[in-house]
Amino acid sequence: MKILIVNGPNLNLLGQRDVQMYGSRSFDDYFLELKNQFPGVELVSFQSNVEGELINILQQSTADGIILNAGGYTHTSVAIRDCIDAIAVPVVEVHLSNIAKRESFRHESMITPVCAGSIMGFGLRSYELAVKYFVS
Amino acid sequence: MKILIVNGPNLNLLGQRDVQMYGSRSFDDYFLELKNQFPGVELVSFQSNVEGELINILQQSTADGIILNAGGYTHTSVAIRDCIDAIAVPVVEVHLSNIAKRESFRHESMITPVCAGSIMGFGLRSYELAVKYFVS
Amino acid sequence: MKILIVNGPNLNLLGQRDVQMYGSRSFDDYFLELKNQFPGVELVSFQSNVEGELINILQQSTADGIILNAGGYTHTSVAIRDCIDAIAVPVVEVHLSNIAKRESFRHESMITPVCAGSIMGFGLRSYELAVKYFVS
Amino acid sequence: MKILIVNGPNLNLLGQRDVQMYGSRSFDDYFLELKNQFPGVELVSFQSNVEGELINILQQSTADGIILNAGGYTHTSVAIRDCIDAIAVPVVEVHLSNIAKRESFRHESMITPVCAGSIMGFGLRSYELAVKYFVS
Amino acid sequence: MKILIVNGPNLNLLGQRDVQMYGSRSFDDYFLELKNQFPGVELVSFQSNVEGELINILQQSTADGIILNAGGYTHTSVAIRDCIDAIAVPVVEVHLSNIAKRESFRHESMITPVCAGSIMGFGLRSYELAVKYFVS
Amino acid sequence: MKILIVNGPNLNLLGQRDVQMYGSRSFDDYFLELKNQFPGVELVSFQSNVEGELINILQQSTADGIILNAGGYTHTSVAIRDCIDAIAVPVVEVHLSNIAKRESFRHESMITPVCAGSIMGFGLRSYELAVKYFVS
Amino acid sequence: MKILIVNGPNLNLLGQRDVQMYGSRSFDDYFLELKNQFPGVELVSFQSNVEGELINILQQSTADGIILNAGGYTHTSVAIRDCIDAIAVPVVEVHLSNIAKRESFRHESMITPVCAGSIMGFGLRSYELAVKYFVS
Amino acid sequence: MKILIVNGPNLNLLGQRDVQMYGSRSFDDYFLELKNQFPGVELVSFQSNVEGELINILQQSTADGIILNAGGYTHTSVAIRDCIDAIAVPVVEVHLSNIAKRESFRHESMITPVCAGSIMGFGLRSYELAVKYFVS
Amino acid sequence: MKILIVNGPNLNLLGQRDVQMYGSRSFDDYFLELKNQFPGVELVSFQSNVEGELINILQQSTADGIILNAGGYTHTSVAIRDCIDAIAVPVVEVHLSNIAKRESFRHESMITPVCAGSIMGFGLRSYELAVKYFVS
Amino acid sequence: MKILIVNGPNLNLLGQRDVQMYGSRSFDDYFLELKNQFPGVELVSFQSNVEGELINILQQSTADGIILNAGGYTHTSVAIRDCIDAIAVPVVEVHLSNIAKRESFRHESMITPVCAGSIMGFGLRSYELAVKYFVS
Amino acid sequence: MKILIVNGPNLNLLGQRDVQMYGSRSFDDYFLELKNQFPGVELVSFQSNVEGELINILQQSTADGIILNAGGYTHTSVAIRDCIDAIAVPVVEVHLSNIAKRESFRHESMITPVCAGSIMGFGLRSYELAVKYFVS
Amino acid sequence: MKILIVNGPNLNLLGQRDVQMYGSRSFDDYFLELKNQFPGVELVSFQSNVEGELINILQQSTADGIILNAGGYTHTSVAIRDCIDAIAVPVVEVHLSNIAKRESFRHESMITPVCAGSIMGFGLRSYELAVKYFVS
Repeated sequence: MKILIVNGPNLNLLGQRDVQMYGSRSFDDYFLELKNQFPGVELVSFQSNVEGELINILQQSTADGIILNAGGYTHTSVAIRDCIDAIAVPVVEVHLSNIAKRESFRHESMITPVCAGSIMGFGLRSYELAVKYFVS
Repeated sequence: MKILIVNGPNLNLLGQRDVQMYGSRSFDDYFLELKNQFPGVELVSFQSNVEGELINILQQSTADGIILNAGGYTHTSVAIRDCIDAIAVPVVEVHLSNIAKRESFRHESMITPVCAGSIMGFGLRSYELAVKYFVS
Repeated sequence: MKILIVNGPNLNLLGQRDVQMYGSRSFDDYFLELKNQFPGVELVSFQSNVEGELINILQQSTADGIILNAGGYTHTSVAIRDCIDAIAVPVVEVHLSNIAKRESFRHESMITPVCAGSIMGFGLRSYELAVKYFVS
Repeated sequence: MKILIVNGPNLNLLGQRDVQMYGSRSFDDYFLELKNQFPGVELVSFQSNVEGELINILQQSTADGIILNAGGYTHTSVAIRDCIDAIAVPVVEVHLSNIAKRESFRHESMITPVCAGSIMGFGLRSYELAVKYFVS
Repeated sequence: MKILIVNGPNLNLLGQRDVQMYGSRSFDDYFLELKNQFPGVELVSFQSNVEGELINILQQSTADGIILNAGGYTHTSVAIRDCIDAIAVPVVEVHLSNIAKRESFRHESMITPVCAGSIMGFGLRSYELAVKYFVS
Repeated sequence: MKILIVNGPNLNLLGQRDVQMYGSRSFDDYFLELKNQFPGVELVSFQSNVEGELINILQQSTADGIILNAGGYTHTSVAIRDCIDAIAVPVVEVHLSNIAKRESFRHESMITPVCAGSIMGFGLRSYELAVKYFVS
Repeated sequence: MKILIVNGPNLNLLGQRDVQMYGSRSFDDYFLELKNQFPGVELVSFQSNVEGELINILQQSTADGIILNAGGYTHTSVAIRDCIDAIAVPVVEVHLSNIAKRESFRHESMITPVCAGSIMGFGLRSYELAVKYFVS
Repeated sequence: MKILIVNGPNLNLLGQRDVQMYGSRSFDDYFLELKNQFPGVELVSFQSNVEGELINILQQSTADGIILNAGGYTHTSVAIRDCIDAIAVPVVEVHLSNIAKRESFRHESMITPVCAGSIMGFGLRSYELAVKYFVS
Repeated sequence: MKILIVNGPNLNLLGQRDVQMYGSRSFDDYFLELKNQFPGVELVSFQSNVEGELINILQQSTADGIILNAGGYTHTSVAIRDCIDAIAVPVVEVHLSNIAKRESFRHESMITPVCAGSIMGFGLRSYELAVKYFVS
Repeated sequence: MKILIVNGPNLNLLGQRDVQMYGSRSFDDYFLELKNQFPGVELVSFQSNVEGELINILQQSTADGIILNAGGYTHTSVAIRDCIDAIAVPVVEVHLSNIAKRESFRHESMITPVCAGSIMGFGLRSYELAVKYFVS
Repeated sequence: MKILIVNGPNLNLLGQRDVQMYGSRSFDDYFLELKNQFPGVELVSFQSNVEGELINILQQSTADGIILNAGGYTHTSVAIRDCIDAIAVPVVEVHLSNIAKRESFRHESMITPVCAGSIMGFGLRSYELAVKYFVS
Repeated sequence: MKILIVNGPNLNLLGQRDVQMYGSRSFDDYFLELKNQFPGVELVSFQSNVEGELINILQQSTADGIILNAGGYTHTSVAIRDCIDAIAVPVVEVHLSNIAKRESFRHESMITPVCAGSIMGFGLRSYELAVKYFVS
């Protein structure tokens, strides 16, 4: 089984940015742990700050499942939404923080309606729960 | 470890109601499987159609974690929100369906901002992922 | 043929409350007349001020048709809406007053879209017209 | 007793238009049945696609009651509303479909607040229930 | 092939009205040119300022295609929308000006969702493009 | 000098309709007085309940000034607005009642922005003030 | 007969300010003409840029009628509205420009609902028409 | 004189819940002090988390005055509003916190318009001020 | 103890203005009674129709508590809000009428969020309850 | 004559994506046919999923006309709008589907107001009609 | 060169009010430093809490440039906006704090559209940058 | 001291685009002058039409201050906002035009709340004032 994790804008700053909200751990560091936790799963990760590159990678993926944290594009991107809707691979939306607790412009996600499901608020563990959904 | 699952209005009809959206399995039937899946966890479930009784059970619970599917009260209940905010036990919100795909009055959840996290769209497996969050 | 009339909050006060708008006749008094008017129909009535108890009674009903005046819950209850949508018995919505003439928060009914039809503005005669719909 | 039925735009297409929603029966065909059902009542019907002609007929009517299906003008016509408010004959609003189930621009009726009552969702039988209101 | 062009309110003033926006040519003058441009097509045109008469002509048309410039009724007429939806002949919506550049109340068209397609902003040439759609 | 007074829907009911708001005098009766008051002015009046006929009369008028009480079409008619904007004769809007005191859907006038000016709230005297504007 | 004209903020700049919209004539200059036009009427005028001073003068006035151009306070002042509502002298609202043609924040007047009537769009002649209302 | 204090959802948690906002004192503890402060007044208190039970107690009360803290139902309950409007006993609304300082969904109270008056922001002393209103 | 009562626009008209809503008693008359009721308290009152003068007096006050009825400025004044927020003396907001029962533009108060508490709907007794809050 | 066709995000998936709405033909396949249809026109096409690359290509184009299907960026991109407004080459907006029939967030186009015209709802033939506009 | 600095309501409290947001320095103290910084410029400052007095001073100013911090009137004053628009002297708007970070009612400025430019968020240095704009 | 100027979409067209609003000078031309004006400051500039590349450059910058003109992304980009919030270097927002004077979709800036300050409306001199803020 092959799972692709796609991270959107500013998630490369994890561990440096707003430590109180996101914690002090980088995604790369967590990703190693995640791979150890699921030895039988082929886990690949990709990050970009460019909306269109996220679409490129989603379109080209041959994974069995995609875990997408679209970051700031979550709330505005009709293009990513259309892409998820167009591809055959199921996508699970994840967020580290509970976006319903934050500014009102973060309350609505453009992509939730086209995802298989949505998991948020569990910090980096949101990724783990999404992997568990795919593997069982 | 003790986990309480609280189900709100009409979830007692699971398996009979809108089989196309919710599947044909009753919650009780699924609950047996869930208990078998987590033999080391004390799993208890409660259902009521009465908003205030859901508040009563949440206030009195001594579990280590609560999994709440507030059903139709999700979108309107300030009282359940205040209750979750007031108690010390962490609450994870779950939904079987992807509520963002449905009528607009279901898009906003009153309780998400006061929950530890939120999981939706995975059918009955949403409960399983919430249990996994608590046990690991 | 069996028809269940379900009355929501404050309809037990009919005849005492706002006589100018609702008239001075109690529902029980009117109900006797209604039963006399339809001798071949088994008419049963239920009233509660508790939203969840209305849901309980709707879920358990074995009538051929239900006439529902949801009172103040008409405008806010996603839970009653879900219940009507989930059960097999057809439900006709009635209101004594013309709710479109009143405060703006009464203009929208949460339950109309899941009812078979809606009758309002004819005072207690709204119930009679609903019964006529079922019996013919 | 004399009752005038006034049908607004496109109701002359009944039986041809959107058969799944409105059924395959023309209004004229139904109207014959309706007249047979109420032999003691003088039933007259009028249809026009022109908003102002509907106003003309409403102003000039000498019936004891008017049953009005204003079709697409229901949601926009201040002029028809003013007319109903200005005349002495009581008007009952009817709709074949449950307009609350349809597009949001059909959810509000401009004329309900000035009608004696409103009946909707019972197909052609909505007219029959309105006649029953007037005759009893 | 027979194509009916239906023009709504004030389009009889073309060439006199707001020359800066609509040009100084009357529709009748342009219509002659249009007929010359498509000698094999039976082109007929109709204009009325009365909403209901537009509905009448749409209902009665036996053309293979209708080109409709509903003028000021574009933004408000549920009745014309219902009519287009009810008839079998395909309707193409045209506008001379780019209505998205004008006052906000002109931005939404009630009829676009029930038309085969929509062409706007090309002046009188909008009609020509619509004819080309039907003839090829 | 020639002045045309155009009255919209239901203004033919003046004197019969809502006497508390509009008074008990018919427009025809008042119009005689108005003509006596301005012997040197050619005053003509026209009334219709049909929106498109109001547009027809406005388009064809050769008066020096038009006084328009558009009645219920005031709040919804883009077509009448476009007509006033298209013709060369100046139009003054009048209302008998103070529409800002009434239901919120009467607060906005579609036609004010294209009229020379607007006078409202003075009962039938609103017409007189408009005539005075043109004659001096 | 005594009539008080009350002018609000920036109306002392008339003739200097936005000459294209308001003309190049000062109010004082026009006021002389107005007094000549109505020799039998005692006309007094007052101007202030301070909202509370406008309220003071309205409260203390012993005129038979007040003509009020509240300028920029027209759209925001609950206090002036309450004052007009509280005093016994009838108030007519005037505006030089057609405020419905301008920015949307100028479209609603807080004071119209408590005035006897409203006249706008006739330039300085708006004052003259208001005086004519009082004197006849 | 008899005064009934009715407390809604989660007010049984006072002293435990959000101590920073509500203080560390339980209502029962405060209630003893309140009774001592007003020895000549018969003070009774009732709490429920169930909306319909609050309605039941309000309907049945024979007190001379009711002090109601409806908690989370304040902002959503049409049913409690209808009940207060229907009963003869005057009701004073109280809140411990200043709800205008909190989340926007707490800014509007459904019940204020049907209460005799409203007191908020004084902590537990809000109850005392309400009692003083009734006793003097 | 020294308490300053600040009254905003039009409250100098109390007893003359809208007697049905506000009663026929002037504030000065009531103020004498209030001083008698609290002999140990130094009560001072100030009224102005000018928003900025209310701010001046609030800024300069050396009282132990301020009772503010901001009248029509309640709903619009960011400046008074900023002033209350800036000064150290606690301010209690009072209103004679229940503003939630009145026009929608009176439903929101700009100043409640910066006041210690809010009391409304008890007529002139609202002032008395506010004094009682400060003195006990 | 040289015409540039610019396709935005996900249009490279045409023929694979949502075949029911968009058909099973790829754009490249259609493009060949289009070139054959207009042998005298130099037709060039470009596609990118990256918003900024669409801007780059629009800025650099030396075509006589541009046909732009901005896909999901249609509804959100101020930057593409500014670009179209800034360049001298006329741009015609096209859409395959009738966006007014779809989700509400697709109803408004940010770019229509700066385009020469707009054509939508004709499937791939929308491009053909746009080319015809430029060539004739 | 002569520059007038106009400060609105509560800016006389600078240094005392909300020290965390505005700092502990009074405006007068800062103003001395500012004058020293620009010895060749005639700098004058004026403060008032009264909206109309701010208008008076703006109307009468003979400065080459005005720097305006309108305080709480920024968000509501149509009258100050009209004044800035009417006078010939250019006005630069300044704010100490970043108003976009604060309550939503502070996000919109009524006066920005009529100012030469706007500078905010730099504390007292906002004034200095505005002076620099005028002097270079 | 090192200052980075980041220009967003279409700012490479400065001098060519909408000369009436933005002037006829290119940014590169102005940038030379700016560097001459501040010989002791290391000024670097970067432009891109790609949202994600702007984020890349902001994340990687080691300047002491950043001056950002985000162009069309100003109004929609949650991703750029998150980036500014995440990095340590202070960012000053600049705009050449007064965006409050333009279309309503340009009135709100997503990035102002996370910037140190904001300067707009001074044409190219907005950059100069921002540099002055950093250097003094």
